[in-house]
Amino acid sequence: MKYNISDTAQNAKASEVREILKLTQTPEVISFAGGLPAPDLFPVEDIKNVTAKVLEEDALVALQYTTTEGNDDLRRAIIDQRLKPFNMEASLENIMITSGSQQGLELTSKMFINKGDTVIVENPTYLTAISPFKSYGVNLATVNTDDDGIIIEDLIETIESNKNVKFIYLIPDFQNPTGRCMSVERRKQVVEIAEKYNIPIVEDSPYGELVLEGEKLPTIKSFDKNGYVIYLGSFSKVFCPGFRIGWIVADSALVEKYVILKQGVDLQTSTIDQMIVARYMQEYNLDNHIEKIKDLYRNRRRCMLDAMEKYFPENIKYTKPRGGLFIWVMLPETEDSKEILQRAIEEKVAFVPGQPFHAHGEVRNAFRLNYSNMPEDRIEEGIKRLGVILKEIL
Amino acid sequence: MKYNISDTAQNAKASEVREILKLTQTPEVISFAGGLPAPDLFPVEDIKNVTAKVLEEDALVALQYTTTEGNDDLRRAIIDQRLKPFNMEASLENIMITSGSQQGLELTSKMFINKGDTVIVENPTYLTAISPFKSYGVNLATVNTDDDGIIIEDLIETIESNKNVKFIYLIPDFQNPTGRCMSVERRKQVVEIAEKYNIPIVEDSPYGELVLEGEKLPTIKSFDKNGYVIYLGSFSKVFCPGFRIGWIVADSALVEKYVILKQGVDLQTSTIDQMIVARYMQEYNLDNHIEKIKDLYRNRRRCMLDAMEKYFPENIKYTKPRGGLFIWVMLPETEDSKEILQRAIEEKVAFVPGQPFHAHGEVRNAFRLNYSNMPEDRIEEGIKRLGVILKEIL
Repeated sequence: MKYNISDTAQNAKASEVREILKLTQTPEVISFAGGLPAPDLFPVEDIKNVTAKVLEEDALVALQYTTTEGNDDLRRAIIDQRLKPFNMEASLENIMITSGSQQGLELTSKMFINKGDTVIVENPTYLTAISPFKSYGVNLATVNTDDDGIIIEDLIETIESNKNVKFIYLIPDFQNPTGRCMSVERRKQVVEIAEKYNIPIVEDSPYGELVLEGEKLPTIKSFDKNGYVIYLGSFSKVFCPGFRIGWIVADSALVEKYVILKQGVDLQTSTIDQMIVARYMQEYNLDNHIEKIKDLYRNRRRCMLDAMEKYFPENIKYTKPRGGLFIWVMLPETEDSKEILQRAIEEKVAFVPGQPFHAHGEVRNAFRLNYSNMPEDRIEEGIKRLGVILKEIL
Repeated sequence: MKYNISDTAQNAKASEVREILKLTQTPEVISFAGGLPAPDLFPVEDIKNVTAKVLEEDALVALQYTTTEGNDDLRRAIIDQRLKPFNMEASLENIMITSGSQQGLELTSKMFINKGDTVIVENPTYLTAISPFKSYGVNLATVNTDDDGIIIEDLIETIESNKNVKFIYLIPDFQNPTGRCMSVERRKQVVEIAEKYNIPIVEDSPYGELVLEGEKLPTIKSFDKNGYVIYLGSFSKVFCPGFRIGWIVADSALVEKYVILKQGVDLQTSTIDQMIVARYMQEYNLDNHIEKIKDLYRNRRRCMLDAMEKYFPENIKYTKPRGGLFIWVMLPETEDSKEILQRAIEEKVAFVPGQPFHAHGEVRNAFRLNYSNMPEDRIEEGIKRLGVILKEIL
């Protein structure tokens, strides 16, 4: 049959880049493309242990339906261990469990966007945030960023020159794709701007705890006294992504609405997965686990930066992130990173071209490298190969 | 702050009935309200066993990200065990795993509905299907049903008198809330109608295998030779709901689009949960497990129908379903089941009033009883109490 699908479905195209990268999912390719955490660090023995206990002591609850807002023990553990230590105040009515923080982006779109409304995003921004926003018919307004994050003057101008700005989407820590952090000063300023213009901020923080060098900066949420910041957290980068568990922290009235919207979307997040993660947080020390991840990533990042220094031609700029998973490479303006990717794949090395991280696709001369998922010898070898290609081309 | 939320969020109201029923979630209340499967039958030992194996043999895969379309072993097991035996042809490219079949409803809404488009639903229908449809600004057209399901003449008239009908949503087996089955003749007719008017059918079948008496009827999908039927399946009622795993079967071009839409919504369904269910299906016999569920539900249904015969006043009609989880009770037209629920709660017995199952809320004199989640002595006692109330009121 010929399907008469919605405008949203018609506009939802398979990512060209994803199709290219499918070709790279073989062991012989050195891939800096994904955003996968290092599986070698998954706390497998501890997870086996708590999973067995959950099924031994509480199977009939773990396998049954549960509430939409999520498991109470898990929500309490998040409040005590992942919010309070970072000066974010929350009680149970301020937090809802999501099926990964991607669902937080989807539900936030459903919560705020009428067709034609504006959402402000950083330029560049997380590419898979763009698709849920677009699926609600949004007008995406981009604001440029520099080494201190979103540029405040441009943000204000963008707010003032657009109607119905529904929220400002920010990744302040080790931003995807640039790896940059927003300065503390600007974090305070965006909260003031949110209050002044009555526009909420969506603070997406999947990497915020992966500080590899220097101090962790205060979250935007920690400066929010009046409910202007919606905070999205995730276990995917600090524990394991396979469970698909994230959370939303917001004003209680808003969380009530989120719960109603989530009911229609998937009723609830996996009961057993929530109980396994809650039990892990009760019985083990997630902080210690995160320290191990940081030790490994610190070495891999060092290794990648050293290799880039050694093998990349001199006229290439790149960020030197203090944490997170990504390095952002900027080429001379005439270059197209998609073409370079084609060459790279021939040499069995892969990355993500920069274009899809720009909501309007206008920047072609940049690409993203991931260092979390490859061992050091492969990082060195992959960067060496990339260096040869870049020297050839430039 | 004062939030400037979307029309969808503004219209999404907490269900009044859900709020009332929250009061009934204490052990002393005999609840016929939910749609919960009996946890006593969850195959806990088998699940412990396969979960331990998954974590022993394949933990680094189980805890990592996976593909959006879902685990291949799980999709193959569904094709071989839950589709082929019922004459539904499918290969891997026809099936996508969903985070519960509720997500199938959400994604189907995103796939087809532009604001103002029409979706046709049975009257009454599954109440939690209504909310994802509405969240995309749908015009809901209801078609009345009788003991053989949706009334074909009314369906045709509704199609012809509405513009942009995007799909027809049907629960042909042991319908929620009525417990009725659509006749084989009408199943064939709706496929012809779908072809004639080029409108897909969404066949929602969470209870189709719970045949307690007589033969299983062929699915609508089994009559579909040209991709007009989108079939939604679920493990929640035949295995355990806590894993939140369902599936969509459709034409391959449509499944490709579903995968793109799901990426934006939650990236993927829990990797570990998919692997546990796949492994269970490989190592154990889900058919045998379903037989055990049927034996238990058969007794509970018999018990409830016997008690209704014994204790209910004579001027009350109700369905006598051959399977599934629900009995539908119809009172004289002057009665309001919400008022009766208030009285019932005082006597510590609960059910779901019929009004929210009607998309336009026009029917007040009916309610739904669930028999799967209470032991027989409690069923007998609960129906006895309800009988006293009904005799008092009528």
